[in-house]
Amino acid sequence: VGQAALEAALEKKKYKLVTFTHVDTSTGVLSDAKTIGETIKRVSPETLVILDGVCSVASEEIRQEEWRIDVVLSATQKGLGTPPGLSVVSASQQAIQTFENRKTPVTSYYASWKRWLPIMRAYEAGQPMYFATPPVNLIYAFHASLTAITKRAPSLAERFALHKEQSARLRKATKEIGLKTVAKEGAFQANGMTAIYYPEGLAASDILPRLAGKGIVVAGGLHKDCKDKYFRVGHMGISVVDKSRGDIDRVISALKETTAEAKKAKGLSNGLPNGQFSEPALITETSTA
Amino acid sequence: VGQAALEAALEKKKYKLVTFTHVDTSTGVLSDAKTIGETIKRVSPETLVILDGVCSVASEEIRQEEWRIDVVLSATQKGLGTPPGLSVVSASQQAIQTFENRKTPVTSYYASWKRWLPIMRAYEAGQPMYFATPPVNLIYAFHASLTAITKRAPSLAERFALHKEQSARLRKATKEIGLKTVAKEGAFQANGMTAIYYPEGLAASDILPRLAGKGIVVAGGLHKDCKDKYFRVGHMGISVVDKSRGDIDRVISALKETTAEAKKAKGLSNGLPNGQFSEPALITETSTA
Repeated sequence: VGQAALEAALEKKKYKLVTFTHVDTSTGVLSDAKTIGETIKRVSPETLVILDGVCSVASEEIRQEEWRIDVVLSATQKGLGTPPGLSVVSASQQAIQTFENRKTPVTSYYASWKRWLPIMRAYEAGQPMYFATPPVNLIYAFHASLTAITKRAPSLAERFALHKEQSARLRKATKEIGLKTVAKEGAFQANGMTAIYYPEGLAASDILPRLAGKGIVVAGGLHKDCKDKYFRVGHMGISVVDKSRGDIDRVISALKETTAEAKKAKGLSNGLPNGQFSEPALITETSTA
Repeated sequence: VGQAALEAALEKKKYKLVTFTHVDTSTGVLSDAKTIGETIKRVSPETLVILDGVCSVASEEIRQEEWRIDVVLSATQKGLGTPPGLSVVSASQQAIQTFENRKTPVTSYYASWKRWLPIMRAYEAGQPMYFATPPVNLIYAFHASLTAITKRAPSLAERFALHKEQSARLRKATKEIGLKTVAKEGAFQANGMTAIYYPEGLAASDILPRLAGKGIVVAGGLHKDCKDKYFRVGHMGISVVDKSRGDIDRVISALKETTAEAKKAKGLSNGLPNGQFSEPALITETSTA
């Protein structure tokens, strides 16, 4: 859906809310949250803008107020670098107001704002208040992650830049190895994960176990139309922020070796003359700048 | 509600389900799950029996099938000895059948059996299936707890016996110190926690900080009618099962010292002649057998 189609739809009918996914976890496609948020609020200020940021928060830039996004939903286990188990929600005053004005009761028990908002307000006022036992250990872990992200180096802005840089590096290397990404080049490519098609003639069973054997764990495809045709590489949080770990180098190197080995095993050409295989090599910073 | 009243109510009207709390977390009162389950199913076999076992599972005996209980609900952070964050549900075939026959859709998204049962069936069949990212770390921790409870010493039966023994010991010591429990003596007293009234003339601020100073953390009251009049001591899982920790000894000793100190500070009599205070002493196993 382009900007014009979005404007036309909003002009035709009044929508209570519009939701969209910032990064599609199944394909690594990035949407233009800034344009979507600003367009919706310009045409229809009453409409709430809700962003699913599960696969983007802390890896992709989000300027919630500036971009006019009312609700950002996320989870702790991706860019935020905390074990899974917590939902993360950031809401605008307009969203909270809309919630408080609603007449139909919320049917969810545990996930209702009606139950959590008083707890949060009591907390901010320094008052004790109880609704349910929270997952305390996860909250401590989340606090540690947030402290690292917001109070230490690299800064949030530097993190976004690092995600872009490392994502571009992985894409460049992918191309050099002769592989294609699912998301179109450039602005549509997420910076925290990359979906890569298996080489022609090869499948998950040729690639994934070989990568695992080199210590690289990637995920299979998810999108229903082509889930057997590609795999997904996560590169978010510590794997791009702490360069000393060399995670991206190792992924690129293992991908190169694996592709060559798998092609050889299947008797496929590696695209090099005389059946030669290029030597796996660590791609350095300078070579991909 | 006694057994006769329960029978009369079930004979008068057909109930889809009856829920009850096994151990009331706010007062430490234990209900007779065996009699309740058996009575309901004898009078009205179609009625589902649902037990809230948050404060009882792994501390109190529950024979789900024998006692005719359809659903046991619990959480990981009490007797099961795992950090908080997981709900635990054990359901009978009758309960699952009832769920599958229901016509109104379940409104909860994440907590719906409709979403989790296929995942569990796929897991049992060794098939991969995805609904949502589970809190993996908590599941590993829960697995470790369950392994300790079901596969190692002390056995589950021994654990129930230990909870009874240590609960009785704490009650006996409480009485000796001159304090009263909220739950009536004997069969109505939970074995994983004890609610104790503050001594006459003393309040939370006299007792809780002093106990905390001795390394004993207890919880304030919860029941709306008398929450400022008592405090709660948790004694479940490792604190009673691993006697070498000496947790119950330390609680009794600190409770004795604290009561004496608090009474002295308020100028209250300790019930001993000439204003003397009894020496805090570790109450040994033999003295409470």
